[in-house]
Amino acid sequence: MAEIERLCIHTMTTRPWTLRQAVDGYRAAGAAGITVWQEHLESAGVAEGARTLADSGLRVAGYCRGGFFPGHTASERSAALDRNRVAIDEAAAIGAPVLVLVCGAVPGIPLDDARRQIADGIAAILPHARAAGVTLAIEPLHPMYAADRSAVNTLSQANDMIDALGDEGLGIAIDVYHTWWDPALEAEIARAGARIVSFHVSDWRLPTRDILNDRALMGDGCIPIATIRSWVERAGFRGPVEVEIFSGERWIGDQARWVSAIKERFVTHA
Amino acid sequence: MAEIERLCIHTMTTRPWTLRQAVDGYRAAGAAGITVWQEHLESAGVAEGARTLADSGLRVAGYCRGGFFPGHTASERSAALDRNRVAIDEAAAIGAPVLVLVCGAVPGIPLDDARRQIADGIAAILPHARAAGVTLAIEPLHPMYAADRSAVNTLSQANDMIDALGDEGLGIAIDVYHTWWDPALEAEIARAGARIVSFHVSDWRLPTRDILNDRALMGDGCIPIATIRSWVERAGFRGPVEVEIFSGERWIGDQARWVSAIKERFVTHA
Repeated sequence: MAEIERLCIHTMTTRPWTLRQAVDGYRAAGAAGITVWQEHLESAGVAEGARTLADSGLRVAGYCRGGFFPGHTASERSAALDRNRVAIDEAAAIGAPVLVLVCGAVPGIPLDDARRQIADGIAAILPHARAAGVTLAIEPLHPMYAADRSAVNTLSQANDMIDALGDEGLGIAIDVYHTWWDPALEAEIARAGARIVSFHVSDWRLPTRDILNDRALMGDGCIPIATIRSWVERAGFRGPVEVEIFSGERWIGDQARWVSAIKERFVTHA
Repeated sequence: MAEIERLCIHTMTTRPWTLRQAVDGYRAAGAAGITVWQEHLESAGVAEGARTLADSGLRVAGYCRGGFFPGHTASERSAALDRNRVAIDEAAAIGAPVLVLVCGAVPGIPLDDARRQIADGIAAILPHARAAGVTLAIEPLHPMYAADRSAVNTLSQANDMIDALGDEGLGIAIDVYHTWWDPALEAEIARAGARIVSFHVSDWRLPTRDILNDRALMGDGCIPIATIRSWVERAGFRGPVEVEIFSGERWIGDQARWVSAIKERFVTHA
């Protein structure tokens, strides 16, 4: 049972809402926090969005997303670094302590190369992030996204990467949707310890009808969310519990009702 | 470049074909081997199917599939053992040296429990398999199948399991579709060594439109098949290269044309 004071919602969970609507809707539901996606901040305008958030009473838990480092050419990879520096600045502008990194993958670039390019990319933007006071959170993505979204697919990889790059300015985002299957999950969460700066929940639907946008509400799937949360808390994490649900089916319905359902299930199933 | 003499096709690749049609179609294409799925053998009748295969000139590389060990109750798990003993006998009847195990997973059974039930189930049927001269091949399945098809999701798990159960009568089936994303793949293939008794190829389509039946023809996706094959061969594997493509889109077309396309791509992309 998660306490409602820890409820944080990703703006992508209510994708059709503007940032303003999300802020109002989450407050009305009693949520304590918000994680902001770039498409919602940029639609609002960064300065205006930052004011909306500052006045909202909501804690900004994070900003999504940086990353997508791999590229076929040096100029593509360099452009990715520029985009990441902008994202770091935007995170700082809205007071987000964390920028979540979806590290990237490109069909045709071997995974080993992509993984090296990711480590190089993070190393390159780390000084900018440190200067801005924004922690870069490496998020391992489910292996079904290895082809085109992230070549970082296990918590073990994220831990290895931080072992190599150093802890300062770096952390890890753990999403139960991406990691629940991993036989090494409990051990790697313990290993991650204080590196865990972000914890995302949703559920795995059966059958999964769409590889991207068919995540389920907590309790409508088979992920042992509370068990994984207990491991994360045993590792020392005391931050918000972030609800991040990509759901084509929910995005077309009434978003306020959707947020009510999230709030209810958060208490019973997260 | 794979030599055509190593081409083996799974009957599920040409799902609409009967066993008889598959035998004729694969021979016409110059394939050397066939891996038989239970639905095709049982439709033909085991005795009749065994005769068809014996007269075919094709090498029977394997039989699919045993497994699905986890269950909520002892009687469900016991029924699974009975089904596996039948599958072992059917494999022996058609001269298949290998029975491929899709180990199973059941929503609501925690993965740790499912994994223990799988190890217990394999241990229980192993004497029967040894007596029949059929090697049980543990096949790690992609993590996107952890909810309902297999709780064995990495080659590392399969290796650990055989470390615990002993090598006699056990082996591993490596399918590039299930394993290509794994950062430990090359190392775990080397560790598996002579345990590798079955090697399956297909490709990962972008975008993947269906989680089950949208595998691509070799070369139509992003898996470095030849690289993975080189690792498997460095580990000592010299067996057939089995084409196993679940594809709703291909199953509705002309199967002889589909087998021709497979043959062509096998030489250039497997």
